[in-house]
Amino acid sequence: MEPGTARIAVDLLGGDEAPAVVVDGALRAVRADPDLHLLLVGPAEVAGGLIDALDPAQRARVTVRPVRTAVGMTDHPSAARAESTVRAAVSAVRDGIADALVSAGATGATVTAAALGLGRWTGVRRPALVATLPAVAGPVILLDVGGTLEPGPATLARHAVLGAAYAAVTHGVAEPRIGLLSVGTEAGKGDRLRRAADPALAAVPLPCGARYVGLVEGYDVALGARADVVVTDGFTGNVLLKAIEGAYAMAGGPPASGGAPRAAAVLGVAGTVVVCHGAARPDDVASGIALAAHLWRRGATYLVSALLHGTPQDPAPSDSNEVTT
Amino acid sequence: MEPGTARIAVDLLGGDEAPAVVVDGALRAVRADPDLHLLLVGPAEVAGGLIDALDPAQRARVTVRPVRTAVGMTDHPSAARAESTVRAAVSAVRDGIADALVSAGATGATVTAAALGLGRWTGVRRPALVATLPAVAGPVILLDVGGTLEPGPATLARHAVLGAAYAAVTHGVAEPRIGLLSVGTEAGKGDRLRRAADPALAAVPLPCGARYVGLVEGYDVALGARADVVVTDGFTGNVLLKAIEGAYAMAGGPPASGGAPRAAAVLGVAGTVVVCHGAARPDDVASGIALAAHLWRRGATYLVSALLHGTPQDPAPSDSNEVTT
Repeated sequence: MEPGTARIAVDLLGGDEAPAVVVDGALRAVRADPDLHLLLVGPAEVAGGLIDALDPAQRARVTVRPVRTAVGMTDHPSAARAESTVRAAVSAVRDGIADALVSAGATGATVTAAALGLGRWTGVRRPALVATLPAVAGPVILLDVGGTLEPGPATLARHAVLGAAYAAVTHGVAEPRIGLLSVGTEAGKGDRLRRAADPALAAVPLPCGARYVGLVEGYDVALGARADVVVTDGFTGNVLLKAIEGAYAMAGGPPASGGAPRAAAVLGVAGTVVVCHGAARPDDVASGIALAAHLWRRGATYLVSALLHGTPQDPAPSDSNEVTT
Repeated sequence: MEPGTARIAVDLLGGDEAPAVVVDGALRAVRADPDLHLLLVGPAEVAGGLIDALDPAQRARVTVRPVRTAVGMTDHPSAARAESTVRAAVSAVRDGIADALVSAGATGATVTAAALGLGRWTGVRRPALVATLPAVAGPVILLDVGGTLEPGPATLARHAVLGAAYAAVTHGVAEPRIGLLSVGTEAGKGDRLRRAADPALAAVPLPCGARYVGLVEGYDVALGARADVVVTDGFTGNVLLKAIEGAYAMAGGPPASGGAPRAAAVLGVAGTVVVCHGAARPDDVASGIALAAHLWRRGATYLVSALLHGTPQDPAPSDSNEVTT
């Protein structure tokens, strides 16, 4: 764990099992990291219950940002209540009260709230979701895992740049190897998108000494032998990540190096944002909070953004038919 | 194992490690199944080596169909040599000398040779590749795993019918539950293809008492809790199957119920055809041969074809931009 205070805003109402799971995860996070400060965003009674469970020293590192509950608010759909807390968490980051935010609420709503409240990076229409899987010889960075379900080749090339920068900045990977996920490793394997993206990734200048190693396959996402960064569309990345999680559950548990992550970093908004899976367990929420603190301490968002924009940007004509969902 | 003789043509030259791995796999298969007869298709010296390793009773169940090696044939690329053996294996099935064929050669070449030599089912442009994963409460049928990388909604609806029939006929699944793979389970989740396919799958009449259960996620492919048949495009199915295989390797081995299969049934050609992964090990080849024998004994190809054509076929206007790779 790097030194340095990290102030993380936590959306207490995001997630299928909120607030119980979020409160439990926040407790674990605050106990595990003595330099972590939490800003609890949500109903005062929920936050109070969490604070009561802490000892006085830990309690000093927890602040509450109550979100006012309008009359009859409890009758509102929980999604609407949760969206008001994620917006309040975004505001806390925008106003400099928190350094980063974590939510296990609906990913689309969190990304939209963050894009509106914090702004987007120049040239980025839809932020990317980046997941890190522990593999045999180090982490595998998988992107996108759900930000853009139908990217064009230029977006995949930008994701290669983002992934290279993220691997170097966040995980200290030297000269990251970038692979494009397809159904075989020989050039020409894949659908139209992959055949168009392969030369685009080969041509795009990559930061941090990264190099493009060509097509990789499904095995390589879990094993990591051939690439440090695996680039794919958000549809495939999302189902792949969940399939690996399902396989670990079938196999009786994740490997010792760790399972499939249930938290992803949002790249493309001007701030540090981590989304947790809606079905996150307390450990997943704690991991998401730890990831947000790690990203903040590394200056990851700022550095990745700078590395992205230091690279000539593709004019992206082939993204014109991109669908945002 | 069902009773009944099954005569399986085995392509000795298909696969990255052919012929050694294929010979080893064929040996295991013939020893494991006393009603299995093999027709070894390939160079006579390779087949002879295999036969020498068998005892006399086993040897009586093995026949050789030598594929003539032209002068200088050893200088040809191995792919060209392997294609001549898979074509000879297809001819053996067409001529009634074998009941089914198995190849670990290039899948595209095998499917093409089978489609040309045996003919395709009415209305099927590209055969589907069907894989069976052992899950918590029974098998999960995943299709397509690489036959059609960019299907339209009508093809996915046809795959739902195929998968329902295959689950019932081949695996004895009563009233199969059919799911469409997407990034979430709520209606509307997914890319354009999934949003168009969801109503198409809900509308298509399904055989064998099957019912469409809507969208499922990546977890469900490995765990099988929500669906017996998971329908997806061939790109996603292929990378997903390999990701699950990689996850089992990371987790120290597959679960007791079995790992990700390295053999797939080809549905859509007028004959029983099984393709093994090019990187198949001897056990994978033996499993592929056992699958081919099982399909033949169940009359799977004939019955699935009849169930498919007993169902009104979609005119498939939205498949007009389908890409075959």
